Amino acid sequence: MILGIDIGGTTSKLALVEGGHVMARSRIPTVGHADADAFADALAQAARELEHSSATRITSIGIGAPNGDHHAGSIVQAPNMPWDHDVPLAAMLAQRMAVPCTLGNDANAAALGEWRYGAGQGMRDLLVVTLGTGLGSGLIVDGRLLLGPFGNAGELGHVILVPEGRLCTCGRRGCMEAYVSIRGIRQTYQELAPDPALLKEDGVLNIAQAAAKGDGHAVETFERTAYWLAIGLANAVALVPPQRIVLFGGIARNGDVLLGPLRTYFEQHLLNIHKGALDIVLSALPEDDAALLGAAALTTLNS
Amino acid sequence: MILGIDIGGTTSKLALVEGGHVMARSRIPTVGHADADAFADALAQAARELEHSSATRITSIGIGAPNGDHHAGSIVQAPNMPWDHDVPLAAMLAQRMAVPCTLGNDANAAALGEWRYGAGQGMRDLLVVTLGTGLGSGLIVDGRLLLGPFGNAGELGHVILVPEGRLCTCGRRGCMEAYVSIRGIRQTYQELAPDPALLKEDGVLNIAQAAAKGDGHAVETFERTAYWLAIGLANAVALVPPQRIVLFGGIARNGDVLLGPLRTYFEQHLLNIHKGALDIVLSALPEDDAALLGAAALTTLNS
Repeated sequence: MILGIDIGGTTSKLALVEGGHVMARSRIPTVGHADADAFADALAQAARELEHSSATRITSIGIGAPNGDHHAGSIVQAPNMPWDHDVPLAAMLAQRMAVPCTLGNDANAAALGEWRYGAGQGMRDLLVVTLGTGLGSGLIVDGRLLLGPFGNAGELGHVILVPEGRLCTCGRRGCMEAYVSIRGIRQTYQELAPDPALLKEDGVLNIAQAAAKGDGHAVETFERTAYWLAIGLANAVALVPPQRIVLFGGIARNGDVLLGPLRTYFEQHLLNIHKGALDIVLSALPEDDAALLGAAALTTLNS
Repeated sequence: MILGIDIGGTTSKLALVEGGHVMARSRIPTVGHADADAFADALAQAARELEHSSATRITSIGIGAPNGDHHAGSIVQAPNMPWDHDVPLAAMLAQRMAVPCTLGNDANAAALGEWRYGAGQGMRDLLVVTLGTGLGSGLIVDGRLLLGPFGNAGELGHVILVPEGRLCTCGRRGCMEAYVSIRGIRQTYQELAPDPALLKEDGVLNIAQAAAKGDGHAVETFERTAYWLAIGLANAVALVPPQRIVLFGGIARNGDVLLGPLRTYFEQHLLNIHKGALDIVLSALPEDDAALLGAAALTTLNS
């Protein structure tokens, strides 16, 4: 049985995975631990409880994490993580659980999950984009997950879309993530709407609902988001052409409010040679499963 | 003996290649033939003359061509070629010469040449950018030349850098090639200088020479070119991180006028995680040899 772990900024999810299916789940907070060692202890304990309650044995562990470096097995320079140093979580967990442990970038893990078990099955070239608090992406190229020298290839969120534009969490300006993400969409709405009543809650669901009902500022917010995303995707296609783009994560689930204008702008901005040669689809897996199944599948990758 | 062919918009170059060295050269015009068949006849005749004068036998042929589709062996939708239809040049030449023939994208061929024999030797991840009439690029990723489903991956020149910006030859607006290429540099200079005396000649050598002497408009032209190129390169690095970037082609040879500001802007726009982890160097091969050696090396690629 493989244990897949999806490390998030606030919550970390665990799943026992067999044959591409989640057999049992668990979760622990990512924050609130004394240090990274205490967090690794908590993960190991949750893993042992899953083993116990499922009467099984974990034989290997795959972890998807923000800023995960596949080659080093470490979480490096992650701006939204509670630690200000690199965390060699693969080795820490391998030691605690006495099984092989592989760690990779979370967006790469999600791409692997969609490729092996979701909407990207059978594709030789695939781009998977995670639209959530941030914007992540993973690339399958010529039938292999693209890793790169730092094991974090495919940082579409940090492609500069608007030179000298909005400040990004990475410290630079104009990154795609500053426009196409929960944070970006909220900022776009805020810049458009004089009285941003819809910003009271976290997330963008309320803005999406207002857009679906025809609220002008909300519609314009998703139009602009779709425009930026379309150019970013067309640029990724020019550099690394996929046969399909899979959108994954909370924002993607807002459906036609985003997808409608996205498909229009995407077709407009695509190089002629690629027109009609690829499609944009939503994740075919339940909410967290691309990340968890992909994390588990990291254990079967050659680096 | 392998025959490498580099198809250009006006001239096509041929070279007999052995062990990564050019043993003999020849060239024919690309334009002025009755049709694509006549062009293929002329290529075959030039190849036979090379065989004869070198007293050797060609055992395989590799062709690098604009818009070359590696999988199809065809030149497809090439805007600067004399034919308005796809040309299956690999099959046409294989038939005429009775040897196996491989055709690939010209920028990919140059990348392969730099990787195998030039400034990219030993790199697992490499970006090679061709700065000439247009802007081409080729990527080595995880130790393999990136091809993609159309065999033309790595179209950095058609990454949109300035949304709704300058019209590009591809019909879209704001592509990097419309800014960072001979054509782009000339347009930038024209927009800056009220009396563009330096535009009388083709190319940008005179603008580069004026910049080296401190001409304000010319210096500003190369500053802006370097700024755009730096953002485009930083974006490519975010998506597909290389260990090195090799610049190749006429514009790159203008030296510090471009390279100086390029290195400064590049460092500014690079993601923190990549700072200090890669360098930008000039091609280490004589003028045409990356393209010719790479074209020859295409014959040894698995597609």
